Amino acid sequence: MTSDATLRPVSAAEVTRWDHEADVVIAGYGVAGAAAAVEAARAGADVLVLERTGSWGGAAAMAGGFIYLGGGTELQKACGFDDSVENMAAYLNAAMGPGADSDRIADYCVGSVAHFDWLVSAGVPFKAEFFGEPGWEPMGDQGLMYSGGENSYPFNTIAIPAPRGHVPQMSEKKQGEASAGYMLMKPLVDTATAAGAKAIYDVRLQGLVVESDGRVSGVTAKQYGADVTIRARRGVVLATGSFAYNDTMVAAYAPRIAGRPAASIEQHDGIGIRLAQALGADLAHMDATEVAIFADPQQLVRGILVNSRGQRYVAEDTYPGRIGQLTLYHQDNTAYLIIDGDAQDEAMASLSPQLMLRPPTWVCDTVAQLEAEMGLPEGSLQATVAAFNAGVERGEDPLLHKKQQWLRPIGSPVGAIDLRESTGGFTLGGLRTTLDGEVLHVSGEPIPGLFAAGRSAAGLAAWGYASGISLGDGSFYGRRAGRRAASGR
Amino acid sequence: MTSDATLRPVSAAEVTRWDHEADVVIAGYGVAGAAAAVEAARAGADVLVLERTGSWGGAAAMAGGFIYLGGGTELQKACGFDDSVENMAAYLNAAMGPGADSDRIADYCVGSVAHFDWLVSAGVPFKAEFFGEPGWEPMGDQGLMYSGGENSYPFNTIAIPAPRGHVPQMSEKKQGEASAGYMLMKPLVDTATAAGAKAIYDVRLQGLVVESDGRVSGVTAKQYGADVTIRARRGVVLATGSFAYNDTMVAAYAPRIAGRPAASIEQHDGIGIRLAQALGADLAHMDATEVAIFADPQQLVRGILVNSRGQRYVAEDTYPGRIGQLTLYHQDNTAYLIIDGDAQDEAMASLSPQLMLRPPTWVCDTVAQLEAEMGLPEGSLQATVAAFNAGVERGEDPLLHKKQQWLRPIGSPVGAIDLRESTGGFTLGGLRTTLDGEVLHVSGEPIPGLFAAGRSAAGLAAWGYASGISLGDGSFYGRRAGRRAASGR
Repeated sequence: MTSDATLRPVSAAEVTRWDHEADVVIAGYGVAGAAAAVEAARAGADVLVLERTGSWGGAAAMAGGFIYLGGGTELQKACGFDDSVENMAAYLNAAMGPGADSDRIADYCVGSVAHFDWLVSAGVPFKAEFFGEPGWEPMGDQGLMYSGGENSYPFNTIAIPAPRGHVPQMSEKKQGEASAGYMLMKPLVDTATAAGAKAIYDVRLQGLVVESDGRVSGVTAKQYGADVTIRARRGVVLATGSFAYNDTMVAAYAPRIAGRPAASIEQHDGIGIRLAQALGADLAHMDATEVAIFADPQQLVRGILVNSRGQRYVAEDTYPGRIGQLTLYHQDNTAYLIIDGDAQDEAMASLSPQLMLRPPTWVCDTVAQLEAEMGLPEGSLQATVAAFNAGVERGEDPLLHKKQQWLRPIGSPVGAIDLRESTGGFTLGGLRTTLDGEVLHVSGEPIPGLFAAGRSAAGLAAWGYASGISLGDGSFYGRRAGRRAASGR
Repeated sequence: MTSDATLRPVSAAEVTRWDHEADVVIAGYGVAGAAAAVEAARAGADVLVLERTGSWGGAAAMAGGFIYLGGGTELQKACGFDDSVENMAAYLNAAMGPGADSDRIADYCVGSVAHFDWLVSAGVPFKAEFFGEPGWEPMGDQGLMYSGGENSYPFNTIAIPAPRGHVPQMSEKKQGEASAGYMLMKPLVDTATAAGAKAIYDVRLQGLVVESDGRVSGVTAKQYGADVTIRARRGVVLATGSFAYNDTMVAAYAPRIAGRPAASIEQHDGIGIRLAQALGADLAHMDATEVAIFADPQQLVRGILVNSRGQRYVAEDTYPGRIGQLTLYHQDNTAYLIIDGDAQDEAMASLSPQLMLRPPTWVCDTVAQLEAEMGLPEGSLQATVAAFNAGVERGEDPLLHKKQQWLRPIGSPVGAIDLRESTGGFTLGGLRTTLDGEVLHVSGEPIPGLFAAGRSAAGLAAWGYASGISLGDGSFYGRRAGRRAASGR
């Protein structure tokens, strides 16, 4: 938050001149802002995007680029996967909760195939190839991947698994180079520009201008240190991102992620949320966060994860973000990956970048020694490994249902990777909006002229997460907000 | 929420007449409102309390009556317990988090002894007798009890244990009769009345009246269906309770407690929080809830609690509210109490009311049979019981450190009590306030003329809880809010 922002609404009567004017003013040029710009401009509105940094992109351009889509997209079909709206909704209702908004999920799933087509028509490239290895992202330029544990327990018992992580193709993907998120953002911004949207940069949002009847009619901002006013004839769309970098908000709303922001950008200081709150806007799911665990999935699937009591708590072959959430929130941010020598060797020989793979913190000949070395309760890890190995011998994992392909007995030497305090993430909560992106007042009525999308708004996730949800609902509801704002209703 | 409340601020210019006037107007006559009324009246202010129901009392009058106090109160000393401010703060910082506000905790602990003396001087009676049995409340009229697991793991390793649950004495306590909370409220209301505070009933808060400079100067309300306006010359104190009965707020902020409100009253519909939000007030810890598990502590301490994987996860002799929180939030609301025949017989012969004690859902000769009967993963419960019994033989519980006095091997016949979906509770989050009870705007500045205390404000708890925290911080910060409002600053 800028130190000089009071956040208080600016009365329109106080504004003596408008430095800029447009029908639709969009704050933030990340994925939600770009999608809103495209649709508002295509609807015939004069669109101006205000971006705080020197360039478009936002957190999206630096992201892995997953867009969570399904229900039978062309890409899913081309890769040989069946999916349906019902299947997708069943998965999301289970995986985005507890407490997920089933109406929003239904709406998103119904529109998902068309949204994929829209992205393609906007020039976002997808390669029709499935990536099936464990990993956070495809290792190459493959376009489709499981990104939420759909094919793992418990979700594979709730809905028929289908991969829904749609990844824009980079022409020459090399490790450490520009992310697939860039390949999402570049075409969207080009499309917005071609449709007539304009943008100005280094513009830092300061206030919302409000008419005497409560309608939002513009914003105040700073550009290169000077005060500027921007009139919005039809509406203002807040697309300013999350509050992951606002320490006060994190302490009040999501204290467990405090001190561990990840996969976010420092501009995510909650300014859009704060300005709308000052108008009486309601919030939702402010405690929800994405949580990554800083461990390579090629190792995770080959070991067993235990908590401070030496107990297993999650199928190791599920979405690693789910492992992160369960570890941070349910296991006091304490996890250890138990992995034997052969499994560690196999992981080291996998596709994963060597620098992501971690050496064991402890290595012993026996589980009893390892348990003592790690300071776990006497007998706890021994019982866990014995039970796991006994199940493997029967060809099953009765406790957590890890898939058969990953079931190998844990042998000797046996190591453990210390994953205590090894999580980080970003916030998912924000403004409560209608399915048209209208910001809701605490009275339950929309605030006239004010819209929000992306991580400044609460989206699909109430607690859980899958990679691609933020770029997915950000672009989907960004479009809706742009269209609705352009309508001037 | 009343259906006709728009929640929007009422401009003072629109108010054509004031039906009532006072220096300090307090909305809600529960514990926070009563404490505010006493202090504001004693500070010389003309005080008017608006109560929505037909009588004072609020949730407090129906509560168990615990007030969480310590640091060496006269009652603690009289019962032979040492305590210190540092000890109390160390416990609360651990038990009220993660994410508890250490500044507020320090402030509360420093003032705790004086607050006890103030309650006594206001006429609240405490009997200098300690109750040491497992239970939710004392079985008789004892005045002091452990109420937050202070003497159990892990808190007994973090701070020197001291009981801090201070319970007002009922002259003739009988089961099912008026609660100790009544014995807190009656003297407080009498004291407020004696100090000059007035109250009107059946007054339902509708709106906050705001001057052109942003100062809150009154409220609008309905009384017997008619609109009334009440001017507050110095300040308005919101003491309207939690949002446990506002389904929209619960869905957005604390979805896991949805459908299971307990130990709350229907008037707790979040109206005070909503009205302040409409002025741009900030919130905190909206996801935090108290959670009770519907099981008798006399049974809990004599069994072992396991989750859906047959694993233990909490010391069974800790505060049962902590067991509730860990069960609902970390174990998917699934728990089973494994208890053998002897232990069950002992519990049935305990002080607890027979109707609170539950028969086992399943009973078998062996743990293996029980495990199969319950549908737990093969070998899981057997390993857990074997490890527990092996520890007991060595005289320890290495996994969870249940106290020695409760360590008995689990024998045959062995039963299990089904505690799935057996939790309920109330919300703890609310308005963000200063230590003087001033309601904070999202800008970080107080909203002039607006104060809050009790469960309409975020208090000591960010996640954890101990019985007595709500009546404790409600009365403590109610007093502060009353004094500050009376000062007219």
